[in-house]
Amino acid sequence: MNKTLLSFRLALICCTFGLLFFSSNLNGQSDEASIKTFYDTSLTNGMSYNWLDYLSNTIGGRLSGSKNAELAIEYTKSELEKLGLDRVWLQPVMVPKWVRGNQEMAYFESNGVLKKVNICALGGSVATPNGGLKAKVLEVGSYKELADLGEENVKGKIVFINRALQPELINTFQAYGGCSSERYRGAAEAAKYGAVGTIVRSLSSRQDDYPHTGSMGYGDLPVNQRIPSAAISTNDAVILSEALKTDSNLDFYFEQNCQQFDDVLSYNVIGEMRGTEFPEEYIVVGGHLDSWDLGDGAHDDGAGVVQSMDVLRLLKESGIKTKRTIRVVLFMNEENGLRGGRKYAEEAKANNEKHVFALESDAGGFTPRGFSFDCSDVMFNKVLGWQPLFKPYLIHYFEKGGSGADIGPLKDGNVVLAGLRPDSQRYFDHHHAANDTFEHVNKRELELGAATMTSLVYLIDKYGTDTISKNKEIKD
Amino acid sequence: MNKTLLSFRLALICCTFGLLFFSSNLNGQSDEASIKTFYDTSLTNGMSYNWLDYLSNTIGGRLSGSKNAELAIEYTKSELEKLGLDRVWLQPVMVPKWVRGNQEMAYFESNGVLKKVNICALGGSVATPNGGLKAKVLEVGSYKELADLGEENVKGKIVFINRALQPELINTFQAYGGCSSERYRGAAEAAKYGAVGTIVRSLSSRQDDYPHTGSMGYGDLPVNQRIPSAAISTNDAVILSEALKTDSNLDFYFEQNCQQFDDVLSYNVIGEMRGTEFPEEYIVVGGHLDSWDLGDGAHDDGAGVVQSMDVLRLLKESGIKTKRTIRVVLFMNEENGLRGGRKYAEEAKANNEKHVFALESDAGGFTPRGFSFDCSDVMFNKVLGWQPLFKPYLIHYFEKGGSGADIGPLKDGNVVLAGLRPDSQRYFDHHHAANDTFEHVNKRELELGAATMTSLVYLIDKYGTDTISKNKEIKD
Repeated sequence: MNKTLLSFRLALICCTFGLLFFSSNLNGQSDEASIKTFYDTSLTNGMSYNWLDYLSNTIGGRLSGSKNAELAIEYTKSELEKLGLDRVWLQPVMVPKWVRGNQEMAYFESNGVLKKVNICALGGSVATPNGGLKAKVLEVGSYKELADLGEENVKGKIVFINRALQPELINTFQAYGGCSSERYRGAAEAAKYGAVGTIVRSLSSRQDDYPHTGSMGYGDLPVNQRIPSAAISTNDAVILSEALKTDSNLDFYFEQNCQQFDDVLSYNVIGEMRGTEFPEEYIVVGGHLDSWDLGDGAHDDGAGVVQSMDVLRLLKESGIKTKRTIRVVLFMNEENGLRGGRKYAEEAKANNEKHVFALESDAGGFTPRGFSFDCSDVMFNKVLGWQPLFKPYLIHYFEKGGSGADIGPLKDGNVVLAGLRPDSQRYFDHHHAANDTFEHVNKRELELGAATMTSLVYLIDKYGTDTISKNKEIKD
Repeated sequence: MNKTLLSFRLALICCTFGLLFFSSNLNGQSDEASIKTFYDTSLTNGMSYNWLDYLSNTIGGRLSGSKNAELAIEYTKSELEKLGLDRVWLQPVMVPKWVRGNQEMAYFESNGVLKKVNICALGGSVATPNGGLKAKVLEVGSYKELADLGEENVKGKIVFINRALQPELINTFQAYGGCSSERYRGAAEAAKYGAVGTIVRSLSSRQDDYPHTGSMGYGDLPVNQRIPSAAISTNDAVILSEALKTDSNLDFYFEQNCQQFDDVLSYNVIGEMRGTEFPEEYIVVGGHLDSWDLGDGAHDDGAGVVQSMDVLRLLKESGIKTKRTIRVVLFMNEENGLRGGRKYAEEAKANNEKHVFALESDAGGFTPRGFSFDCSDVMFNKVLGWQPLFKPYLIHYFEKGGSGADIGPLKDGNVVLAGLRPDSQRYFDHHHAANDTFEHVNKRELELGAATMTSLVYLIDKYGTDTISKNKEIKD
């Protein structure tokens, strides 16, 4: 093949590629134009920010089994009903109910000086004994160190797990992942060696005074061996660690009266628009409706909830009729049980519903950077072909990786899973803490996320999730 | 050429390219490793955030000619001296001195009801007459409408220019650019038709109560024809506009007692590390040290100042000896005169200094997305070859475009100019307003910017700014 011929063939391939993907759709509008409509509408006439305002400021934190969780179910159901979807319903699911009780309190005492510190009970923890718990402290960098230290060093102590997020990791989720098992398993491991409580450094990227809660579990530890576990703010973790250097014998006191109740009935909130060509193929977009109780859950995951709701609204407003059935699912109980995600997948399987794609937004309402995909290489390459369509919106991150906790149970080898990936730098400043509040969500950043999600759902609906269906549809 | 041969040649080109750019440097360390060092050091041991804390919280707003501007000069000079650079000095420059005076106040009165609104004088404006100014209001969408309305509609009125930033523009600087001449020229244009004052809608991306100041000018308007001009908050712009719909005859009152003084002596702060091979070739990195007076100038442009300072420190800490002389320049008076930028370029020319590259950070301390370049196509293509080195840090934006106001005067056809491009979504929420404060700067985002700038300076220093010098150096 000579160079001219090669150039010509390359040009032809590029042209064909361009025509196939970017030129026109069934509504006579190019993909570029459809996507521009989603962004324009979201930024000039989006609903996500208003919905989030209500969810955060009028309702507030929405822990599974709480009154606020009920209010959030009612509110989002009623808002979805206003959108004129084909169907809106509640999917019953039993969820755990853990209640924090009174505000926790803690201090340490060294050389007769008392220093108050900021703590919060971890979700799922037991309470301290009546009147609180006072003991000497053993500081470790991870629960794995306990095995070497053994019972003689641990017994009767409060274990203080002081493991900081690695600041040099660009993706803060990776830094979080490197520490999250300390929070989840720390108490169960420490109890094995006779510890009386655990205090875990908050999984935050920032030095400040907010303690960050999150789930923990006791595994198969018998009920009478369970010890209370709390998170301490990053500032106070540093202060405590410094104090221990000069007085390893100091006394630490904390008090928390949280309680685990029996499971209660709750719901996933679901809305759908039926597809025009393949109504039996389902595309899911969602976030989780529950949140921790300290803040108002604006970033985690109020943002994902309202963005997912707006995906259906933005599609509807654009006048595009989707080929496939698009569902918004607001999952209950991601934070401390994942019952909603499991229930949804269970029912989907029982009803033999063919899910082709699921997208979750559960990484905060920050400027969207792209998506991560859990899918085949063939599908991933197809997605990479869409990158130029996202470039005007500065969406550049398309990588293989995880998707979202709630949609994970749908995984079956066929469904394509994806997660929205917003800028991660600020997420763990707010995650699970009292400062996860509405005023820390920027309206434009939130709206850009909704439009970005809508654009991907639109492309997947239009071109399908594998090469075979793509070719078929394009020939049609 | 057959296909195999072509593939082989392509592979060879790729390999050579890889070796040339990415493999090893004079210190025996790969570019990847050097760049990782800059990011690691900035995120684990950066100075930018501490410096910004002092500049914002201990000093505060630093308008040209103010006491705070003097303090900022002293502080940054002394901090640069601690870095052990080869030379730190002050470059004298005369700057305008405009002083706001007392807090402004404004209200409108309709049907006997008085509504207070939030305004601030625009920088460079004259004061209202003693006792304030009260007049009827004429609302327009831009000053260009005034020509059609003519003197009969304008004379004796306060012209209210109510032009909102376009929310659908993804780059908020573009939205700002679409309105900024209303702020700058509005009063001069309205005065031509006999207006007695102008009120300009704040150039903010957000609906809130903060008025945003910024520079304005009277052009060649005689002193006795100058009318006072103020910005009104976006919320109050909407309220006033609504009120005018039902009562076009309402009275608007405002009072401001700002004043322009004679020019005063100030300084650019400069530090440099001499190059080892081409010490007579200069690379400049900088931001502007002055800020508006309402907030503490943390984003605009405290962030750029401290990031630029940290570029030199990060290079030094890494142990890399640069070939060229690297200068940090903290420019005075970007906001209302650009005297520092002009002075620096003037002196560089007078001293026959060969500037090869200048990089400015003046778009806020938000997550860096990339750079825009003002340079030849040849140079730009060279830069594009470096993109893979930035990918691990999610730096993806490399486009031709503007650079920075302060380095603009250096432009001479040879120097390559560039601007750091952080995420722009939140910038105009804070720009020139009382909420441009330290707590709105995220530590990691700021530090990522400093490392990103350092990486580009490192590559430009190493590979030079044009193909000829690159080839020469690689042969050496």
